[in-house]
Amino acid sequence: MRLTRNGASARPQAELGAVTGQSTRKRVSVLGATGSIGENTLDLIARNPGCAEIVALTANTNAARLAELALQHDAEMAVIGDPDQYQTLKDALAGTKIAVAAGEGAVVEAARAPTDWVMAAIVGAAGLRPAFAAAEQGLALALANKECLVSAGEAFLRAVEAGGSTLLPVDSEHSAAQQAMQGHPQDAIERILLTASGGPFREWTLEQLRQARPEQALKHPNWEMGQKITIDSATLMNKGLELIEAYYLFPVEKAQLGVVVHPQSIVHCLVEYCDGSVLAQMGAPDMRTPIAFALAWPERMCAPTERLDLARIGQLTFEAPDATRFPALRLAHEAMEAGGSAPTVLNAANEIAVAAFLNKRIGFMGIPALIARTLDRAAGEIGTAAPETLDEVLATDQQARQLAQDLLPEVMRAEAG
Amino acid sequence: MRLTRNGASARPQAELGAVTGQSTRKRVSVLGATGSIGENTLDLIARNPGCAEIVALTANTNAARLAELALQHDAEMAVIGDPDQYQTLKDALAGTKIAVAAGEGAVVEAARAPTDWVMAAIVGAAGLRPAFAAAEQGLALALANKECLVSAGEAFLRAVEAGGSTLLPVDSEHSAAQQAMQGHPQDAIERILLTASGGPFREWTLEQLRQARPEQALKHPNWEMGQKITIDSATLMNKGLELIEAYYLFPVEKAQLGVVVHPQSIVHCLVEYCDGSVLAQMGAPDMRTPIAFALAWPERMCAPTERLDLARIGQLTFEAPDATRFPALRLAHEAMEAGGSAPTVLNAANEIAVAAFLNKRIGFMGIPALIARTLDRAAGEIGTAAPETLDEVLATDQQARQLAQDLLPEVMRAEAG
Repeated sequence: MRLTRNGASARPQAELGAVTGQSTRKRVSVLGATGSIGENTLDLIARNPGCAEIVALTANTNAARLAELALQHDAEMAVIGDPDQYQTLKDALAGTKIAVAAGEGAVVEAARAPTDWVMAAIVGAAGLRPAFAAAEQGLALALANKECLVSAGEAFLRAVEAGGSTLLPVDSEHSAAQQAMQGHPQDAIERILLTASGGPFREWTLEQLRQARPEQALKHPNWEMGQKITIDSATLMNKGLELIEAYYLFPVEKAQLGVVVHPQSIVHCLVEYCDGSVLAQMGAPDMRTPIAFALAWPERMCAPTERLDLARIGQLTFEAPDATRFPALRLAHEAMEAGGSAPTVLNAANEIAVAAFLNKRIGFMGIPALIARTLDRAAGEIGTAAPETLDEVLATDQQARQLAQDLLPEVMRAEAG
Repeated sequence: MRLTRNGASARPQAELGAVTGQSTRKRVSVLGATGSIGENTLDLIARNPGCAEIVALTANTNAARLAELALQHDAEMAVIGDPDQYQTLKDALAGTKIAVAAGEGAVVEAARAPTDWVMAAIVGAAGLRPAFAAAEQGLALALANKECLVSAGEAFLRAVEAGGSTLLPVDSEHSAAQQAMQGHPQDAIERILLTASGGPFREWTLEQLRQARPEQALKHPNWEMGQKITIDSATLMNKGLELIEAYYLFPVEKAQLGVVVHPQSIVHCLVEYCDGSVLAQMGAPDMRTPIAFALAWPERMCAPTERLDLARIGQLTFEAPDATRFPALRLAHEAMEAGGSAPTVLNAANEIAVAAFLNKRIGFMGIPALIARTLDRAAGEIGTAAPETLDEVLATDQQARQLAQDLLPEVMRAEAG
């Protein structure tokens, strides 16, 4: 890098929506177009005409919105997961050149359409097959689905490797880590620290946590998210799952990954180098920043996000996470250390535990209790080997969910007693 | 960048002193070897045998220490600025193969010895000629001398350009900016924010500042530095000079440079991008981190610095600088905006003003008052054109020092009245 100033080459600040550098027009598909990540991705594309050509858009059930987006972006195809919505979608796009299809298989086919860049933003287990299909194509894969790395880490990385794809995490913490590593020698990294807001119960005592109700856990201080992820944020399991994702994403050992609690959610990740230097990525909590980073990568595009004003914010605070009150973080660390089937089991058990808490069958501290029991028993009942294919991942996931369901009464009895 | 994990390629954490990557042995000269920056540079080299071959070491007056360092590092030559120290140096190195020379011209000649990397760490105006000589050679130039960019910015950048050298700033803020920019598209930068500790008088009222004594100003909260720079830190002129340096170092417009007060001195610089993302470099206040960064660049080397522990530090605070109590920052901004001879005059007037304050001839607020008067009068007395050569820089610097001296009685009278 030449650091010398050259008046002639100093370009004016890029305008909102402009992509820097000499990017070519990308062929783009968005899987999960009508969700928050999908909508924001398409909004950024709309603000920057010419940056992308839309190949496929998919949605699960919202055919009306999918048709609107497909028309607005002149997509080549629009695919709805729910076959019952096929006719609605077809009617809405009648008379256009936009190809229409429906069903889970059609969504996977859409993920295989030749493109340069795919946003994999279908949430949960439903997002696995489409993301695997995209990864095998050899493209830049913006990944917003957590299960690909948490449940299916090893199998997914094999698909990415076989396809020769590049992963671009779309998650504020992992995007932050990628940004703080880009351009620096990765073998000089000593530690990657993900930040955790600490959730709504950060200052609650263990006794208070035992009594915490779902409606209290659903009040997240900084981010508006779905119910499941908001509960994960209250237990800190969200950060535990992110640790596992980080392990698969970045070239570091497990012991080099850590978490620091940072209630303001301004610093998203810190990467420490062996010369004592720490590079941190910060920003207002706005998903459009990591989406824009992935969309424009390796260039940058402008995004209409609130700009960080540290003098106005005044202070950023940091504290160590408390493993006694928030055992989920420790459970995730142990599952990461164990490897094999453990992360898959952890994720499945957590889903069952969170649902049981939301249904008021167990208390807040029953969530980690059920996960711990499931992990303990899974070694004998399910086995410890890593699922090697997506089908094996899905089978292990099902077995672990069933095991957690079976163990639920034990946790309920323990809480009642 | 491939982000996929590959167990086989994940290298263990580098050991202390190890340079990452496949660096070749560099030929290195250190100008100002016996000062703090020079000593730390050589200490890092000593901890990492094989990373560098020492060509020339220079010092101003400390012949005994220079001889020790030359022997320890098996230098090709040792050069002392003060001719009176020649015999001492020669005697100390008698019987070795180390070439010995003395005098200002010999120091400049040492800077011209063929090398890959030079640390330009001679402070003040004395550092200009050697740094220019090194810059003209076409090498990686680690720059610790402020005057090259503040007083001689345009002329120095021409020397760097003509030589095809790469500048590596050795200053925690500018090194931080370089680290936060490296690997990211520079035309996407919206703003570069340097942090300022705020100095020992951060919370003082204007009335208190008028009464501030040198011994109070010399108590810097975070860094141990020389007297002149510590006073600059108390007036915030240090940050003003750094703004000017940043303008010459980085490809941004003047309006894109700013300062935020951050009393803990943990975050050294923040670079804001057009997608709302902010990359910040942090670390314990230790000059060995920026030195190690410059020395190993584009790789990294390990340094025995204290590791940042944010959970222990607890909080980082930020506030806007107060232009009323700290007018030096505004004066520096105005000189940067004016360009031409103004930065040279600013720097010269500041030297005279700080000396007058340390000698108790003017009060603390007399420092910016004298600088403002000198800048006002310089346009008519000295002219506004940028000095084009090093000789012109030195002539303008002398004229501005004389002008500031001439104006000193006016400021003394204004303070007395």
